[in-house]
Amino acid sequence: MNQSQVIAFATDFGLVDPCVGVCEGVMVSIAPDAKVVHLNHNISPQNLNEAIFNLFVSYKYFPDKTVFCFVIDPGVGSSRKAIALEFSANGKTQYLVAPDNGIATPLLNHEQVLRVISLDNPSFHLPNASTTFHGRDIFSPAAAQLAKGTDIAELGTLLPKDELVKLELPQPNFKEGLWQAQIIHMDHFGNLVTNLPSQNLEKPLASWTALAQDKVLSPVYPNFASVEIGETVVYTGSSGFIEIGVRNANARALLNLNLSDTVIFAKHSKL
Amino acid sequence: MNQSQVIAFATDFGLVDPCVGVCEGVMVSIAPDAKVVHLNHNISPQNLNEAIFNLFVSYKYFPDKTVFCFVIDPGVGSSRKAIALEFSANGKTQYLVAPDNGIATPLLNHEQVLRVISLDNPSFHLPNASTTFHGRDIFSPAAAQLAKGTDIAELGTLLPKDELVKLELPQPNFKEGLWQAQIIHMDHFGNLVTNLPSQNLEKPLASWTALAQDKVLSPVYPNFASVEIGETVVYTGSSGFIEIGVRNANARALLNLNLSDTVIFAKHSKL
Amino acid sequence: MNQSQVIAFATDFGLVDPCVGVCEGVMVSIAPDAKVVHLNHNISPQNLNEAIFNLFVSYKYFPDKTVFCFVIDPGVGSSRKAIALEFSANGKTQYLVAPDNGIATPLLNHEQVLRVISLDNPSFHLPNASTTFHGRDIFSPAAAQLAKGTDIAELGTLLPKDELVKLELPQPNFKEGLWQAQIIHMDHFGNLVTNLPSQNLEKPLASWTALAQDKVLSPVYPNFASVEIGETVVYTGSSGFIEIGVRNANARALLNLNLSDTVIFAKHSKL
Repeated sequence: MNQSQVIAFATDFGLVDPCVGVCEGVMVSIAPDAKVVHLNHNISPQNLNEAIFNLFVSYKYFPDKTVFCFVIDPGVGSSRKAIALEFSANGKTQYLVAPDNGIATPLLNHEQVLRVISLDNPSFHLPNASTTFHGRDIFSPAAAQLAKGTDIAELGTLLPKDELVKLELPQPNFKEGLWQAQIIHMDHFGNLVTNLPSQNLEKPLASWTALAQDKVLSPVYPNFASVEIGETVVYTGSSGFIEIGVRNANARALLNLNLSDTVIFAKHSKL
Repeated sequence: MNQSQVIAFATDFGLVDPCVGVCEGVMVSIAPDAKVVHLNHNISPQNLNEAIFNLFVSYKYFPDKTVFCFVIDPGVGSSRKAIALEFSANGKTQYLVAPDNGIATPLLNHEQVLRVISLDNPSFHLPNASTTFHGRDIFSPAAAQLAKGTDIAELGTLLPKDELVKLELPQPNFKEGLWQAQIIHMDHFGNLVTNLPSQNLEKPLASWTALAQDKVLSPVYPNFASVEIGETVVYTGSSGFIEIGVRNANARALLNLNLSDTVIFAKHSKL
Repeated sequence: MNQSQVIAFATDFGLVDPCVGVCEGVMVSIAPDAKVVHLNHNISPQNLNEAIFNLFVSYKYFPDKTVFCFVIDPGVGSSRKAIALEFSANGKTQYLVAPDNGIATPLLNHEQVLRVISLDNPSFHLPNASTTFHGRDIFSPAAAQLAKGTDIAELGTLLPKDELVKLELPQPNFKEGLWQAQIIHMDHFGNLVTNLPSQNLEKPLASWTALAQDKVLSPVYPNFASVEIGETVVYTGSSGFIEIGVRNANARALLNLNLSDTVIFAKHSKL
């Protein structure tokens, strides 16, 4: 018997309309025992970079067989494909159901992609599928089918994985002893997440100092509590990236920094 | 054996207080196996038209036996009745638990209402029910009872359905070859939903053009992707109503249109 | 067999990041049958008073064995302890998993605390636990262990309950025939909740009048519907505290009152 599984659901639908709930209604109609975990429905409208960040920091914390259903879909109604993807990561087999618009990029870059299917079998769409709400009519039914154990191959035509849309993500680079990184996310607390994995910095971490806009932010500390309340603190965030915060306050509001801004990391000895 | 069922829960409680979670605590205390789907808790405070729209676009996507629990209740503590209603729709039997203030209107208008009960049996209320939070003390317990298979008749006194409060909803009208509709909802993406079902328009849809404030919006297109990014697009929305959007942008912010504004649909040949 | 239980989850993580969903992913990885009820994730960042209010008005509405997981954690990464607490209330045994920063105060004040454990057994933390996201790495795993029936004593070292951090909460006081109370919460509807339990007022309630900033607000009424729409109304709220509202409107926006403001209750005969 296939045990019914977790669907981790992320969208840019927001929480002021019944769209998310309607999708969950479709999911539980098809897979009554599925457990729907709401990962984030406040991704900025049509923002693929945010969607990718949300997927990247989440999947390793979910169980074997989890179906990630990500509906951030600026191309709904156009000719972009709808896909389901089976991948192997951290000893688990998991799935992604999403538009083919680059959301799968972190899985294509970092994990073993086993099978990719174009969701073109209309018998697994809702009847009279709309051209504007594929979240409800195509993605939710596909996620629910995978959650209840339907083999991915039944959902449509096999696609070669190198035909998938893959986005170029900004990468940190190392030149003349300096790491140059970028702010890629601002969280609810106002902390600024860079794209520099702390493991890229030569140990000890504390020998590096972060700068932005020609001003020193702070050395790289072990955690928030390394500084006094109200002070700027650079530290390894929970996703493994270096982050910039202000202890018990909102760095986004207090520092004059924005998404895509550059952050430089230098050895103290170079300052 | 009665399998425990889905409760689709909608309120105007918002998500900054623990009210929604407390109601779910009451539900799972009574019906431990119920699956609570959160449909929308950001309905504008005491806005019955929004509640009705949320119910109308949702119920057909939920499974047999679903209990819709809608708590938008400007009259809490007054003499308005609390009701449970059993209805048949799309081959399924479903339930609504709500104040008797007009939320049931779309079911009374479009579906077969089987039984209506006044929730006046205090043995199914929480002990010491408050006069201000019937969501917790009366509606959640009733929804949970229905979800675990208690017969609706046990919850109180049978009511004739024509005694229920029914609201007059704005209807589109057709005069001298023109359809006159109204904007009844603005969604998270800023799309403007009218009350004109696209099936009311004589085919082909593309022969109609939408106007507002004496300006042409666009012809009625099959979907967003029919126009360029940033252009205004009129199309059949996912609920079957004609909607006005701006491709990959926010029509609410860009067009000078509001709730209740009139939208006219004319045949091209008449322009 | 231990049946898997409810986890009532509250944080200040907000709903714009995947943090809440990631924690739920961790919980269901450990306790696949746990039912996670989201109590409130919009507690103001690092606001312990709000966290305490949310816990206080919620726990009696949840079933036996519920695990309350409250992550409002300004001291993450410092030496503050992480704790699990077993308590008996209303004939039920329930649990709290939280930082040791005062969130447990209402349980220490009002209920029988059975056992307290420092969550210092690293075999129940996620591997490579971060210093910044104990919600994911320490609290969620502990809550999930309790939900699936692991004995609380396995999670770490027993602590004497009088070593826990306990906060002084503002108390109403009675002097020369007047009750002096404080606004401790403003809800989604704009109602202002005071810290005066209505049972403190000598009966009949209607013999008392509320004043703020030297102006009369209203007598203490049985409910909202006791006044006309748009009028100020003082009443017993659903948590048993006296509240100040404006019928079918937003008192927070209409009255010039704020958190911590004083509200005086006087017998009519004294006015």
